[in-house]
Amino acid sequence: MAPGFSNQKSGAGESPRSVHVNNPHLDSMKEDVLYHFNLGTATQDLPAMFGDVKFVCVGGSAWRMKAFVQYIAGELGFGDPKADYPNLCAGTDRYSMYKVGPVLSVSHGMGIPSISIMLHELIKLLYHANCSDVTVVRIGTSGGIGLKPGTVVITKQSMDASFQPKLEQVILGKTVVRSTDLDEELAEELLQCGAELDEFETVIGNTMCTLDFYEGQARLDGAFCSYTEEDKLNYLGEAYAAGIRNIEMESSVFAAMCKLSCLRAAVVCVTLLDRLKGDQLTSSHDVLNNFQQRPQMLVGHFIKKQLKASQKS
Amino acid sequence: MAPGFSNQKSGAGESPRSVHVNNPHLDSMKEDVLYHFNLGTATQDLPAMFGDVKFVCVGGSAWRMKAFVQYIAGELGFGDPKADYPNLCAGTDRYSMYKVGPVLSVSHGMGIPSISIMLHELIKLLYHANCSDVTVVRIGTSGGIGLKPGTVVITKQSMDASFQPKLEQVILGKTVVRSTDLDEELAEELLQCGAELDEFETVIGNTMCTLDFYEGQARLDGAFCSYTEEDKLNYLGEAYAAGIRNIEMESSVFAAMCKLSCLRAAVVCVTLLDRLKGDQLTSSHDVLNNFQQRPQMLVGHFIKKQLKASQKS
Repeated sequence: MAPGFSNQKSGAGESPRSVHVNNPHLDSMKEDVLYHFNLGTATQDLPAMFGDVKFVCVGGSAWRMKAFVQYIAGELGFGDPKADYPNLCAGTDRYSMYKVGPVLSVSHGMGIPSISIMLHELIKLLYHANCSDVTVVRIGTSGGIGLKPGTVVITKQSMDASFQPKLEQVILGKTVVRSTDLDEELAEELLQCGAELDEFETVIGNTMCTLDFYEGQARLDGAFCSYTEEDKLNYLGEAYAAGIRNIEMESSVFAAMCKLSCLRAAVVCVTLLDRLKGDQLTSSHDVLNNFQQRPQMLVGHFIKKQLKASQKS
Repeated sequence: MAPGFSNQKSGAGESPRSVHVNNPHLDSMKEDVLYHFNLGTATQDLPAMFGDVKFVCVGGSAWRMKAFVQYIAGELGFGDPKADYPNLCAGTDRYSMYKVGPVLSVSHGMGIPSISIMLHELIKLLYHANCSDVTVVRIGTSGGIGLKPGTVVITKQSMDASFQPKLEQVILGKTVVRSTDLDEELAEELLQCGAELDEFETVIGNTMCTLDFYEGQARLDGAFCSYTEEDKLNYLGEAYAAGIRNIEMESSVFAAMCKLSCLRAAVVCVTLLDRLKGDQLTSSHDVLNNFQQRPQMLVGHFIKKQLKASQKS
């Protein structure tokens, strides 16, 4: 059983890379139930289970995050890529979580609210486990703007539907604005990894994060649509002019919450289609599957490089 | 292979209970790929598969929606409750879908964006399948305010974090306000079913729908918390005064989209805890499991009654 925990852990003030929680109430809690993970400080020894985590990769699909941990096990030589890695959140179907060596792979479902619940509990998990120097990368899928399908976009800034780099968080009924800045140096390192791999196109661009897949992303194929194709193309054109190269549904709250917790963070999404040319995903299953592996390959290469560098130093 | 389809299907103007799509662009599409269901008009015969659907039950958890279809199969005498009903969305892990007789059971994940994607594709599915007289019920879990845990709340109005009965939908970067009215008569019928069952408390009340589980619902146990316990209790007290009896994360967009599509809709959620007394879910697994079955039992009873009544008439 894990002991009680404190907000003021040793070294929290000295190291810029420890995981921060900003909640004085946590001090007075005897235990912390991470409900949507089916984990807790009184039921698991979180430092023993997770204390060595240095890289967390998160993505919408539970299947993809399981495939990622298998891929990374093979790439890093930590285990058999065909092994059946256990789901550490086995008692719930809200999220899935897998671990191999210093790499944690967690699913987050679709949309800001779904990833936000996961991140609250992930940040507390990393904090309770006394993790430090953690890098978090979202690997996902997205719609591209003016890019060849299959291009991987590393997010410079996550923007809202008005092309502003901010997240509006409602707290007690009032709106608080949070920054969605990501780590620029990390983005450049990831771009460099893309160049080294040289297997697909990788670019840095702004990412629009919306609350809705159909009307919120100017699609013409939802159950409701009150605008014309010209309206759609004008809107996407304005987005392109604001530096936006892809659209997804989680990056803004991901960036905001990682920043508040002093976690080094990046968003790496492949584009499944060019929204200037259509709305529906009509590529074959095999082609889409191949596209979805690209962020995994990029981040796998990055982690391998980082681990090699840390072994040398 | 299903033929092309039209927005103006026969009888659409005469029957108030046909499923409406409000999208002129659908007329010109040769096929419609319901991507997140892994279904489509060119790959499946949707009228043959779904044309007889009269009740759709939706809920966050894929496991719960599978359990629901097994429960309803037994209750209605349509099949073995222990049978392994196939997932009709088997090629994707975004949502799960099960069917027995006229009842469709679909999972929607957590939060407004996640259920919104599902509802766009569900409404189009019902439309393509020529369904009519469809009732949709969300069966879920929630946090209660001033209610004994385990109480089932049937939603009168779904309210936002400022206690207003509306949904702000962003379309092409601009905010459109939508009504979140639900069917009052259906709510009363469901309340009557609760009285008939007489196995747990059932009430009608307003439901607050938030974009966030922690800060958005005034919890003190998230990774971030900038307010005091007094602030929290004041906020929840104001919510109670506005008639709010429970808090969840999907009802507003569910109500708004069902209303736009002329679907008779209700929200039936069990409360897992009383938020005036705490934030964490510390009840035993068995107790929480029992609570989660209550909306299923209530809606099962309702469907049984409806089918009996339609057989008589």
